[in-house]
Amino acid sequence: MTLPRILTLESLRTLYAAGTLTPLDVAEAVADRMEAWADPAVFITAVPRSDLAAAARALMERHPQPNSLPLWGVPFAVKDNIDVAGLPTTAACPAFAYRPDADAHVVARLKAAGALVTGKTNLDQFATGLNGTRSPYGAPRSVYSPEHISGGSSSGSAVAVAAGLAAFALGTDTAGSGRVPAAFNNLVGIKPTPGLLGTSGLVPACRSLDCISVFSACVADGLAVRRIAEGVDPADAFSRTIPPVALPRAPRFGVLTGAEREFFGDTETERLYEAAVERFASLGATPVPFDYAPLREIAALLYGGPWVAERLAAVEDFFAANADAFDPSVRAIVESAKGFSAVDAFRGRYRFEALKRRAEAIFADVDLLLLPSAPTTYTVAAMRDDPITLNSRLGLYTNFANLLGLAAIAVPAGFRADGLPAGVTLIGPGGSDDALGPFADALHRGAACGAGLDRAASFPAVAPPEPEGIPLAVVGAHLSGLPLNGQLRELGARLVGPARTAGDYRLYALPGTQPAKPGLLRDPNYEGPGLDIEVWTLAPAAFARFVAAIPAPLGIGRVTLADGRAVSGFLCEAYAVAGAEEITGYGGWRAYLARAGG
Amino acid sequence: MTLPRILTLESLRTLYAAGTLTPLDVAEAVADRMEAWADPAVFITAVPRSDLAAAARALMERHPQPNSLPLWGVPFAVKDNIDVAGLPTTAACPAFAYRPDADAHVVARLKAAGALVTGKTNLDQFATGLNGTRSPYGAPRSVYSPEHISGGSSSGSAVAVAAGLAAFALGTDTAGSGRVPAAFNNLVGIKPTPGLLGTSGLVPACRSLDCISVFSACVADGLAVRRIAEGVDPADAFSRTIPPVALPRAPRFGVLTGAEREFFGDTETERLYEAAVERFASLGATPVPFDYAPLREIAALLYGGPWVAERLAAVEDFFAANADAFDPSVRAIVESAKGFSAVDAFRGRYRFEALKRRAEAIFADVDLLLLPSAPTTYTVAAMRDDPITLNSRLGLYTNFANLLGLAAIAVPAGFRADGLPAGVTLIGPGGSDDALGPFADALHRGAACGAGLDRAASFPAVAPPEPEGIPLAVVGAHLSGLPLNGQLRELGARLVGPARTAGDYRLYALPGTQPAKPGLLRDPNYEGPGLDIEVWTLAPAAFARFVAAIPAPLGIGRVTLADGRAVSGFLCEAYAVAGAEEITGYGGWRAYLARAGG
Repeated sequence: MTLPRILTLESLRTLYAAGTLTPLDVAEAVADRMEAWADPAVFITAVPRSDLAAAARALMERHPQPNSLPLWGVPFAVKDNIDVAGLPTTAACPAFAYRPDADAHVVARLKAAGALVTGKTNLDQFATGLNGTRSPYGAPRSVYSPEHISGGSSSGSAVAVAAGLAAFALGTDTAGSGRVPAAFNNLVGIKPTPGLLGTSGLVPACRSLDCISVFSACVADGLAVRRIAEGVDPADAFSRTIPPVALPRAPRFGVLTGAEREFFGDTETERLYEAAVERFASLGATPVPFDYAPLREIAALLYGGPWVAERLAAVEDFFAANADAFDPSVRAIVESAKGFSAVDAFRGRYRFEALKRRAEAIFADVDLLLLPSAPTTYTVAAMRDDPITLNSRLGLYTNFANLLGLAAIAVPAGFRADGLPAGVTLIGPGGSDDALGPFADALHRGAACGAGLDRAASFPAVAPPEPEGIPLAVVGAHLSGLPLNGQLRELGARLVGPARTAGDYRLYALPGTQPAKPGLLRDPNYEGPGLDIEVWTLAPAAFARFVAAIPAPLGIGRVTLADGRAVSGFLCEAYAVAGAEEITGYGGWRAYLARAGG
Repeated sequence: MTLPRILTLESLRTLYAAGTLTPLDVAEAVADRMEAWADPAVFITAVPRSDLAAAARALMERHPQPNSLPLWGVPFAVKDNIDVAGLPTTAACPAFAYRPDADAHVVARLKAAGALVTGKTNLDQFATGLNGTRSPYGAPRSVYSPEHISGGSSSGSAVAVAAGLAAFALGTDTAGSGRVPAAFNNLVGIKPTPGLLGTSGLVPACRSLDCISVFSACVADGLAVRRIAEGVDPADAFSRTIPPVALPRAPRFGVLTGAEREFFGDTETERLYEAAVERFASLGATPVPFDYAPLREIAALLYGGPWVAERLAAVEDFFAANADAFDPSVRAIVESAKGFSAVDAFRGRYRFEALKRRAEAIFADVDLLLLPSAPTTYTVAAMRDDPITLNSRLGLYTNFANLLGLAAIAVPAGFRADGLPAGVTLIGPGGSDDALGPFADALHRGAACGAGLDRAASFPAVAPPEPEGIPLAVVGAHLSGLPLNGQLRELGARLVGPARTAGDYRLYALPGTQPAKPGLLRDPNYEGPGLDIEVWTLAPAAFARFVAAIPAPLGIGRVTLADGRAVSGFLCEAYAVAGAEEITGYGGWRAYLARAGG
């Protein structure tokens, strides 16, 4: 088996585990591919073949056991506004370049997990743009069209993964730079909740909003990389611990409607968006049309409001001395920051807080949003002709996310009739980074569009989250469809499945109960066939409320199942079965009810 | 019984319930007191006697039953930057005055609860100051000295309550204006978590930080008023639902130490602070010296940094046309905002986020802080000689709280040798507004300094919070001091107390258990004396973990107590007592162990 064109963690692990390839082989293959790739604008600094090989050898010496680290021998690319020790950081501005001594926080974590840096990728200068043409190092093209933009600002990172030059790549996402290029290259873009990934060692764009993001072939890989990269960064004051937030199994998802549904005439991207909505609905989720206007206004605030001052704050001294070194569009944007006073900054904050209220009202009605990653795409030539207007169109559905502290995952949505890829993004509350995963993966899988430049690439699935909670064996009126089952459902309990008790339990029909209830008692001297029950699972607080509400003579003890497991379950005080009919022979409460009623 | 000098909700309720006085009587008495009070600077607008009487009569007509509303006939004063319909709002700037048609959000809630507005109180102009001298309406004096400042900016509100002219008063607190005047008038000042009380109808000082606060004679009253005033305000984008946060019964509290312990030579205020620390420690709390420096730097950032632009944002158009109408100190402060750019605003935010990190590290070591409300006080003359420096000294220990989203309660700490009062403030995490109450009340009570101008005033206590949780009857090895009791304690369970089962329970010594355990079974045909047990209480999640871990043959059912209550408690499967020794006659597991061991 040789190296697949599109690299996934699973494919590399399998090859390494089988001994088919070593990290050195992969390093050589990646170096070959980087040399062979026709677009010279992807990397600003490629790691020399000899250095890449040396890094692979060093890994194999220190950690000889294949897959002994979670990213053992996994090649990755790094956007060139993120420090990698020993390589220049340019932020796509040659005059700004410096050579850092230390890795950025996230790069250090990924290297420590065994990943190998292949190079520093091109970007819209100072991460200011969503199109990928604002760089003196050239404009990377979509892997699907040499005429079309790759999207930005993380242009080179997306192309590197989509072209099979890396298994994953780090981007950054302030206004959508981790999502738009994913859409234009048939990739997954993981945009973590702000603060989840530390940003020390990143050249800031808007420091209060910048997120480091991950491009990957599939959701499973992006999540795996993000989990390794995340963690509190002592040198980043915006880094923080973010409690995970769960989502319902069958979520309500917001969909664009009415005048807020804008694709700038791109009916094909609109068709792919509609197909994604239908796909998600067919998975059991409920589409809910919502008013995008407050989010659009937040998006506009980020681009037209005082937050632009953060871009000047990031480079103020350098800009004062080197304005001519800037890309003209970037220069104009940074320059515009000078027009904003501190009063304007606070007024922007006030306006934002009012819009945030309205955004919170949206999330009262839906669990997450399904939006186009970008409403359309453009050729490099068109973008250069109208660099500001077309760029802001690209961010129509991405700009608001970081101001609101949301998590997002962009996934491929299929191909337009002209063969260009488009994408959709799931956006959930802060902390829903993992919870979005299974939905995003199902949407990607359902689009049947492969990954990157391989429309037939396969990739591993993201498993739905294990139901967390305490198992509870129910025996009688709480069984599915019986009168008290609603008590479990109201508490959010989930059915694990049918089960059978061990053979030494007897069942009695408790006299005078309403609704009718059985009592289960263990008798070590009895050997029967066991009784049909169900195991449910409840969150701890719900379990507590359930147990505390059970009336005598029932209680919760330990019920041994036929498979030997002992789980919490209904038992009955012995006094209550005095004079009761023993119904053990029916094999369970439901069978007894059926015969009694028949 | 006549009206006490210091008004509390309890004293008014008692008089109203007895029919001794009516709201009309109280309105007349308060009007008398307002006329008699020697300091003309307390009110900017006093409600005319006839209007106050009319409001009392209207209340009695609409709600004739005494105490039929929670604040039935309770007179209160309102700081004159908060709208009361029909009265001018001046913010202590006559040229700025307007006459609102509607009550501020909180005023409407308090009026709806039956409270009666007595007047609009003086303040440092635009709430810009902590001293009470920055007003063309004069400088209210401490009720304990006609030479000394009342503190500000909520100067008149504090004096009104301390002088018995109102049962409570609304202030505002951006940098300490709800705490410093409490200290200088022997009062309680409730500074809610930012966002808890709606601010629509308030003239902003720093809109992102402003809190409406409550002055009262005692903590119980302040909390009661705050609970009525709080609630989401649809017209205030900073208003929000704030989940209550609990505090441990025996908290660790931060105390000033080393160079950060600064009283500007006021050894008497320092002595009173030390006494409060000792008092709190004697109540079972643990003093923890901590480094105040990060909080001091945050405080300095609020006064010297770009947040001052919020003060200009609040009045920008008016200031442009009426700069001469401003108090000179206030004018200089507002004017200084013009020097800050949007870049400065974001840089201030960055600096704040870094300091916030350090502040969070403090709260990892302590549950709350005990700080002086103000390090010292000054005469009006001294303040007017050096209005900026002395003012900023007053805020040394208050300024940081709102930037960090904290809750605070200021309480009296006793009197200096010269007869002037001083105060201390408990500061806890956002949402600890209620949890701080019992501690603040105990500190106040322990200072034995009365309230307001009555050093002997008495007031009702704040009850410690009811233990929330699920009661659990334990019967055997989990009893206090027995081998498995630690399982309960590790889960945070609390002992409610000893109890006794109903008479129809039997107890058995389970054979072969390690540690030794009994089994409790109900036998409806048995009439005994009941068994000694204990009732504990556990939080739901802890209860769930406890129940889920109980091994067979024990379980949790419903145990009926001798008083007739049925609570969750240990029961035993019947099979397990076959052949076991019945020990019911001992009256309980502990007695059995004692006899068995004796």
